[in-house]
Amino acid sequence: MTINHQIRLACHPVGIPKQSDWSLMKEPIRDIADGEVLVQNYYISVDPAMRGWVKDIESYVPPVKIGEVMRALTVGEVIKSNRDEFSEGDFIAGWDGVQEYNLSDGKMLTKVDTSIAPLHTYLNTLGIAGLTAYSGLHQIGKPDPGQTILVSGAAGSVGAHVGQLGKIHGCRVVGVAGNPDKCRYLKELGFDATVDYKSGDLSRLVAEACPDGIDVFFDNIGGEILDVGLANINQGARIVLCGRISDINAAAPGPGPQNYFALTIKRARMEGFIYMDYRDKFPEMISKMSQWIADGRITCKSDIVEGGVSLFPEVFPRLFSGENFGKLMIKV
Amino acid sequence: MTINHQIRLACHPVGIPKQSDWSLMKEPIRDIADGEVLVQNYYISVDPAMRGWVKDIESYVPPVKIGEVMRALTVGEVIKSNRDEFSEGDFIAGWDGVQEYNLSDGKMLTKVDTSIAPLHTYLNTLGIAGLTAYSGLHQIGKPDPGQTILVSGAAGSVGAHVGQLGKIHGCRVVGVAGNPDKCRYLKELGFDATVDYKSGDLSRLVAEACPDGIDVFFDNIGGEILDVGLANINQGARIVLCGRISDINAAAPGPGPQNYFALTIKRARMEGFIYMDYRDKFPEMISKMSQWIADGRITCKSDIVEGGVSLFPEVFPRLFSGENFGKLMIKV
Repeated sequence: MTINHQIRLACHPVGIPKQSDWSLMKEPIRDIADGEVLVQNYYISVDPAMRGWVKDIESYVPPVKIGEVMRALTVGEVIKSNRDEFSEGDFIAGWDGVQEYNLSDGKMLTKVDTSIAPLHTYLNTLGIAGLTAYSGLHQIGKPDPGQTILVSGAAGSVGAHVGQLGKIHGCRVVGVAGNPDKCRYLKELGFDATVDYKSGDLSRLVAEACPDGIDVFFDNIGGEILDVGLANINQGARIVLCGRISDINAAAPGPGPQNYFALTIKRARMEGFIYMDYRDKFPEMISKMSQWIADGRITCKSDIVEGGVSLFPEVFPRLFSGENFGKLMIKV
Repeated sequence: MTINHQIRLACHPVGIPKQSDWSLMKEPIRDIADGEVLVQNYYISVDPAMRGWVKDIESYVPPVKIGEVMRALTVGEVIKSNRDEFSEGDFIAGWDGVQEYNLSDGKMLTKVDTSIAPLHTYLNTLGIAGLTAYSGLHQIGKPDPGQTILVSGAAGSVGAHVGQLGKIHGCRVVGVAGNPDKCRYLKELGFDATVDYKSGDLSRLVAEACPDGIDVFFDNIGGEILDVGLANINQGARIVLCGRISDINAAAPGPGPQNYFALTIKRARMEGFIYMDYRDKFPEMISKMSQWIADGRITCKSDIVEGGVSLFPEVFPRLFSGENFGKLMIKV
């Protein structure tokens, strides 16, 4: 009898999630039913969005309930299948949660091609990170070649992709990150300029790094950088609201952008998105990004923690301390 | 020799503009030059946007400089013309300032047809108020029939038009205003529901008035109502940023919208505009609104103060005290 190790939500976290917010459970896998697929997870994605999912409030997805297996994006392999569209040995990406195995009806599973890229790339460039960047940049930001893109949280997995996609599109890309190592990494990725937000007056640094103003601001952070970005937008600019990690752990949201009225002065817009809304376009995005990976035009650091699902409570908070660098995931 | 009474900016106001921020000047009108048009102003528009124009900061238009005649929209009559396109007796709308006469090259003048509506209507429904409402609602807000529109500052000249245009478009329209008289007026204009923002908990009142959520929020005010509106938006909502009168007189902007991240959760957008950007569409808008005036589907109170340009310093602050009701203008 195979035992499935799982991380379940013990209570809705207050502040930065801690060990006691989670329970490590072991349960035997029940027999597969008609129409089901049994997947073994090999990598589990650890994403800032998860902090939103464990808040006890309605959002774009229902909150994870106390006692439920923690929701997570995963990649793995089909072990048993009672569905025609999946066979044993298929590699798949899905939403199989922070656990070793999952039985499902297969509706959230997508077959992936590991001849194009290693399996874990489907949690990175060819998964949530790359697809979020692509959707937000091209569906919402819509930069023209030659325009300036500012990216906050640029060394994060989404930000790093936004910058590289911006360069491929012929834009000038400026990245904001939290230390010199991350800024060096952004330069290696091709960013035209970087701002270490801990190194001085953020307003001055951003203004200097964007002498022609900002046409697209891809914001993963919120807080001070959102206001500074607004103060530097050009006429007709687009602010893409991807994340608000600056106060994601706070009990109540922090202050809003005091400079929001720049949107009127500059006839600009600020717009949010959820990458899953663009899933009908994922095959096209994956096809393009696969080619750019092959051409060496897109790379992205993966920060793979080995040791299995039990590490999740310890690994998850790294997203909020600044120590994580590259796409965070757990190898099961 | 004709004397021109003018209001010139004496200093950049701090807080609500006061008498000493302005100088009343008298100067003789010089002889008309080649290519010039002399206009006599009959009505001078008094608008919240003027408060922005006298701030000493670059904006969508250059600030009015100390000693300059105060910028204002006007309607009047051509008295002398050295331009082929204008003749004595033409009624015109223009940017002729807070003064009795103006000599210009005519580039900012538009002939108006007083057989359609009284001259001052070209500062109201067929001028800045109606055209701002029309541009913002249809170019930015883009409501579908049946959707819910929330309007803040609804009893103001722009808000009142937004509501009526929304009803003509088949929407459900909810107006927020500052006293029961204004709310009654909104009901007379056809608003489906009203919120007196001084009458109780604004969050609860707006949620009750918008049981199906908000699809388009036309915001003239900012501050608390912007946050409350954001808390009630539907998926795909559009927030039209027209004004920020809540802190227009403050030395520094007030807090921004804490709930801005609802834009991401709801895949919504917040966008500003300046009505003059749509001037190529004004003839079409004026033609439609003229018909709606004739059909009795659009009306708008005018708050006409008689007594000439010298009253401007005393009249202008009424825009910020809540006492103004309908489109404010001065009859020269």
